[in-house]
Amino acid sequence: MNIQIRPATIEDIDEVHAMVRELAIFEKAESSVKTSPEIYKKDFKDGIFEVKVAVLNQEIVGMVLYFMAYSTWRGKMMYLDDFVVKNKYRNRGIGQLLFDAFIQESKAQGATMVKWQVLDWNEHAIRFYEKNKAEIEKNWWNVKIIF
Amino acid sequence: MNIQIRPATIEDIDEVHAMVRELAIFEKAESSVKTSPEIYKKDFKDGIFEVKVAVLNQEIVGMVLYFMAYSTWRGKMMYLDDFVVKNKYRNRGIGQLLFDAFIQESKAQGATMVKWQVLDWNEHAIRFYEKNKAEIEKNWWNVKIIF
Repeated sequence: MNIQIRPATIEDIDEVHAMVRELAIFEKAESSVKTSPEIYKKDFKDGIFEVKVAVLNQEIVGMVLYFMAYSTWRGKMMYLDDFVVKNKYRNRGIGQLLFDAFIQESKAQGATMVKWQVLDWNEHAIRFYEKNKAEIEKNWWNVKIIF
Repeated sequence: MNIQIRPATIEDIDEVHAMVRELAIFEKAESSVKTSPEIYKKDFKDGIFEVKVAVLNQEIVGMVLYFMAYSTWRGKMMYLDDFVVKNKYRNRGIGQLLFDAFIQESKAQGATMVKWQVLDWNEHAIRFYEKNKAEIEKNWWNVKIIF
């Protein structure tokens, strides 16, 4: 299996949006997706977020979407907002390749740490993160206001 | 009481770092603060984060520290990483002025939502956020790797 991990280009963004929607369906939250491929393209061009895609036989089969954030305790921190491998391509190590590329890129950009979130019932993802020596914190709640 | 809310300048950053430390002590996590005022100054100049300060009689008495982040579900999202009012200036409405300035700035920059986190035992903060019509989510866990 010849998987290539590479930075996304603007031509990949339609597919990136489709994968976000696929993950939201898995997370039982499809109606929460209010963005469109057009919004992604503008924000991607503006440098608001970055993406790496996994490519197999010219097909995009997975992606990581991340941006530089800040930890007042640690400094520059890369935040992983979305991490998807298409359902039919799971359990082949593609997620690990994408995750490794995300870690490598974060270090290259001078991040002191990486952070993301997982749903408390997503056991498969939690096992993957534990295998990768990530630390899980259960004592912080998210707070948000939607405009 | 004549409180002024204004964007921080590089000269304010020593005081901003001191307030981050004060909040970390309250959160029982002082040893977690690995940053220095010098790191803050570099990252502030690089535009990694933004700050607004509350000033009373030429003294900085509080601040909000935030940066533009991204929600794959909603688009541009302002993330509030730190929100401090110095202990002896609490309960005078300064936090509300800072919070309102943060919301206003987030809207001005085109954010579709704002997000932050609160410790599950911090009842005073939770009441403040509920009063401000924020939505609290308890089903996401933080995951991180520190380099």
